[in-house]
Amino acid sequence: MAADVSAAELSAAQLTQRHRATLDQALQAIRTREYWSPHPENPKAYGDSGTGQGPAEGKAAFDALCGTEFGLDQPGTDGRVGDEVSPYGVELRISYPHPDPDVLIPAMRAAIPAWRDAGPETRALVCMEILARINARSHEFAHAVMHTTGQAFTMAFQAGGPHAQDRGLEAVAYAYEEQTRVPAGAHWVKPQGKRDPVRLRTTFTAVPRGVALLIGCNTFPTWNGFPGLFASLATGNPVLVKPHPRAVLPLALTVRTAREVLAEAGFDPNLVCLAAERPGEGLAKSLAVRPEIRIIDYTGSTAFGDWLEANARQALVYTEKAGVNTVIIDSTDDYRGMLANLSFTLSLYSGQMCTTTQNLLIPRDGITTDAGHKSYDEVVADLAAALQGLLGDDQRACALLGALVNPQVRERLEAAPSLGEVALSSRAVAHPEFPDAVVRTPVLISLDGAKPDAEAAYLSECFGPVSFAVAVDSTADAIALLRRTIRDKGVMTVGAYTTSAEVERAVEEVCLEESANLSLNLTGGVYVNQTAAFADFHGTGGNPAANASLCDGAFVAGRFRTVEVRRPE
Amino acid sequence: MAADVSAAELSAAQLTQRHRATLDQALQAIRTREYWSPHPENPKAYGDSGTGQGPAEGKAAFDALCGTEFGLDQPGTDGRVGDEVSPYGVELRISYPHPDPDVLIPAMRAAIPAWRDAGPETRALVCMEILARINARSHEFAHAVMHTTGQAFTMAFQAGGPHAQDRGLEAVAYAYEEQTRVPAGAHWVKPQGKRDPVRLRTTFTAVPRGVALLIGCNTFPTWNGFPGLFASLATGNPVLVKPHPRAVLPLALTVRTAREVLAEAGFDPNLVCLAAERPGEGLAKSLAVRPEIRIIDYTGSTAFGDWLEANARQALVYTEKAGVNTVIIDSTDDYRGMLANLSFTLSLYSGQMCTTTQNLLIPRDGITTDAGHKSYDEVVADLAAALQGLLGDDQRACALLGALVNPQVRERLEAAPSLGEVALSSRAVAHPEFPDAVVRTPVLISLDGAKPDAEAAYLSECFGPVSFAVAVDSTADAIALLRRTIRDKGVMTVGAYTTSAEVERAVEEVCLEESANLSLNLTGGVYVNQTAAFADFHGTGGNPAANASLCDGAFVAGRFRTVEVRRPE
Repeated sequence: MAADVSAAELSAAQLTQRHRATLDQALQAIRTREYWSPHPENPKAYGDSGTGQGPAEGKAAFDALCGTEFGLDQPGTDGRVGDEVSPYGVELRISYPHPDPDVLIPAMRAAIPAWRDAGPETRALVCMEILARINARSHEFAHAVMHTTGQAFTMAFQAGGPHAQDRGLEAVAYAYEEQTRVPAGAHWVKPQGKRDPVRLRTTFTAVPRGVALLIGCNTFPTWNGFPGLFASLATGNPVLVKPHPRAVLPLALTVRTAREVLAEAGFDPNLVCLAAERPGEGLAKSLAVRPEIRIIDYTGSTAFGDWLEANARQALVYTEKAGVNTVIIDSTDDYRGMLANLSFTLSLYSGQMCTTTQNLLIPRDGITTDAGHKSYDEVVADLAAALQGLLGDDQRACALLGALVNPQVRERLEAAPSLGEVALSSRAVAHPEFPDAVVRTPVLISLDGAKPDAEAAYLSECFGPVSFAVAVDSTADAIALLRRTIRDKGVMTVGAYTTSAEVERAVEEVCLEESANLSLNLTGGVYVNQTAAFADFHGTGGNPAANASLCDGAFVAGRFRTVEVRRPE
Repeated sequence: MAADVSAAELSAAQLTQRHRATLDQALQAIRTREYWSPHPENPKAYGDSGTGQGPAEGKAAFDALCGTEFGLDQPGTDGRVGDEVSPYGVELRISYPHPDPDVLIPAMRAAIPAWRDAGPETRALVCMEILARINARSHEFAHAVMHTTGQAFTMAFQAGGPHAQDRGLEAVAYAYEEQTRVPAGAHWVKPQGKRDPVRLRTTFTAVPRGVALLIGCNTFPTWNGFPGLFASLATGNPVLVKPHPRAVLPLALTVRTAREVLAEAGFDPNLVCLAAERPGEGLAKSLAVRPEIRIIDYTGSTAFGDWLEANARQALVYTEKAGVNTVIIDSTDDYRGMLANLSFTLSLYSGQMCTTTQNLLIPRDGITTDAGHKSYDEVVADLAAALQGLLGDDQRACALLGALVNPQVRERLEAAPSLGEVALSSRAVAHPEFPDAVVRTPVLISLDGAKPDAEAAYLSECFGPVSFAVAVDSTADAIALLRRTIRDKGVMTVGAYTTSAEVERAVEEVCLEESANLSLNLTGGVYVNQTAAFADFHGTGGNPAANASLCDGAFVAGRFRTVEVRRPE
């Protein structure tokens, strides 16, 4: 059943030579969780001075894709779809094959046995070759991510490129380690006193669950998509990739690259297929409940995530939904650093990250700082000023904010002033290169946490560049509200600023009890909304914002089962 | 927050000295999956010549429990319940506290922080001390298991004692390993080119999900209960033990032992509590959907398992339900060994094991054996004769069969002759010691697999001493039926007898594709219905019979989450 890898263009020896050492480093990294990445995050590291496409080559490759029929030689194609429009105002005019699942899914299932028989190491090395080729095309991916998500170029390059590749490799490392915790075989020898021992030979095979469905999101198609894709593929499952209809291209490029590598390595390329959808088709919903779909990875709204968890009962469902991320401001010994750090977090990608802080809980009597006592109003005003300073220059603002990803975000932004007192208004920013880009600075709304009508605002997720400064009675009150927020609404991130060891312990205890990741006193170049693969966990999987964490053993352990065969020896 | 273990009767140093080396051996065993057990399975190894209670002491301890109010100093007690009657005919007359969950569960939750802060190693060592004390009382447990399940004494001793303890320890080892895959902390240093690197200190804490509910079964209260109980406890979760109302005592003893050890080690004994129920109360159902219950382990009927999976949505639900275990008989080079092996499997504990073979698929044209060609009728008649021979002597039959666990099993046995042609009738066996014990030999029914009405019989689980010889058109037909059985009904075990490498490969392929564990050509002292902890997986978790496997990474990985806290360094 095994693919004849020796006859393939890409031999097992080549794969080992190229990637085994890096796999070992990745395995070490997930053990130490220290900083590590094999993918340079500096765009200048690619091209002439390094490996892969350079900037011009990447741009040209992206431009060449626009206005074409995106080729994917996969079976079961039923017409073409696609109408992506860049948040920067450009129509991509790319069409993709539309799938006939009744043809495509059986073809994917037929690919399973040879991929299963290849074993964990070969699967890991093939996945790493896919990632390496994606890495070499990081500039092309950057433009694809930029023009589907609205991220500014540098962020699209880093988060959509090397950082996403890191998360994919992290999943490959976890998948490999999990499958190899059990040996391939064992000799079972049970002593029988004075009689001869009983002897059996046992074999253990990691078998996939079935076809995996990846449901991509609009804002981070690769960063949020790669972990599930590579975790499923590395554990032997074919993966059907259903991108968000507004962010197809980055995942279509991913699928094409994966198919090329699989074929070269002697495997069936149908192990990775694309399922682009017609407008309003609801393809994710109909695919998700098919009996062949045994794993689903999803990033997106709480409503659809909850629907998947309730209805796709035949599948393991890994979801990242919405949360109400919170920062407690109790006190600080670096007031300026805190304001700078927070204003960057609130601005980056116009707050369109699942990790962006929404609520800033501030005692109404103010806080102690290295710059003296600051009243609630002063803290809010100073944060507004820091935001204004950070985003005062249009070009710099555009590089930080990117564009609004879709009209719904703009509508929420425009409706926000009605929710409370406007501490900082949003302003439209002219983009130097793309005049039709919708670029807006964040709005900061001040709310009195004690007022019941305010609670309806700050305890709902308001995805986009809208944050709430919430006046609370005390730090203890803030901590109680934090607990309620995590428990009832979920969070991806929690931050706290305090110089009090007691407050620090109390916040930490709430995060441990309610299962939330905490960043304390960040005032420098690390932000509460950013996590690094191999080192940081993205979410905990233990509160309503997500049932999975990127990446841990739980993220991979259920994607395969171990089948034991025993026979007398 | 940490318990003051140094001041406890049972110090950390003592725990380490007693158990750390064994934990290391267990960790090694789950890596090699070779035969290993620290718990002697020979009843004679206990007492005078070894450690723990001897036979007389164990019997006396059991006798002393009968007719008493079972003491458990747990909060939230609301009256007493209990009406266990031994399948051997003896009323146990033991009453247990009935819980008020609104008082008991908050008390259990209050115990979490100190247990969480104790860390994975201390939790593992405390669990091992609990298991060691249970091990020392294996004779007492044997009587408790015998007189609640109907197992014969030796089986009750082994499966209910050392083998169950092995499965518990296996779960502790997996839990410890899983939690320690991530370091307790890390220094995160990210290079910044020529600038100073960014530095953070991160800590990682395994945090429990919440209160775990163990729903015990009638037939194997300890063997099926210990893995979930110890997996949850070792990962920091309090465990509420809801025994089957007919098999309370073995788990009540377990809870009492756990509470003693926890208290001695300086922890809150409410980490393990009992929830015995009133007749017809449906306590499992009401507990299972409480928001505080975050993990459920269940062994029992498919109907209630499916209900739990559909309704206890706030919890991780690990189920072992029912299956239709199948053996394919294609050919053999040890006909007598095969018949002896099968007849033992069908007889052990009156077929009341979730692993007992129900369907024997035999080509209607017969099979090739070392004793010449055997027609279908001959194979069935020879198997019937082997069963008669094995069970001809009443005393030996009783030692193998045990007693029928409940009236429903007896009803199924008595109804079985109407399902097809009776190849071997059941007979009542007189028990030498317990005249009221209901002891019956298995019935063997022959069915024509091609007849639609036969399918209704052999494709439903018929739990108890009822097996079906099913005449199929060919071995290929048998393999196709095996695939359909696994996919539609689920199996815990598959067996096959064949001398053909081609048939062996085909059966193996079906088991890999449909996720079932396979035993090939067992003719000696190992049986398809028996698995050994550390070496064999019990179920795969990949077919409808069970969603979990004992024990693997997936069984423990979701029971805790990792919370990351990071701060500038």
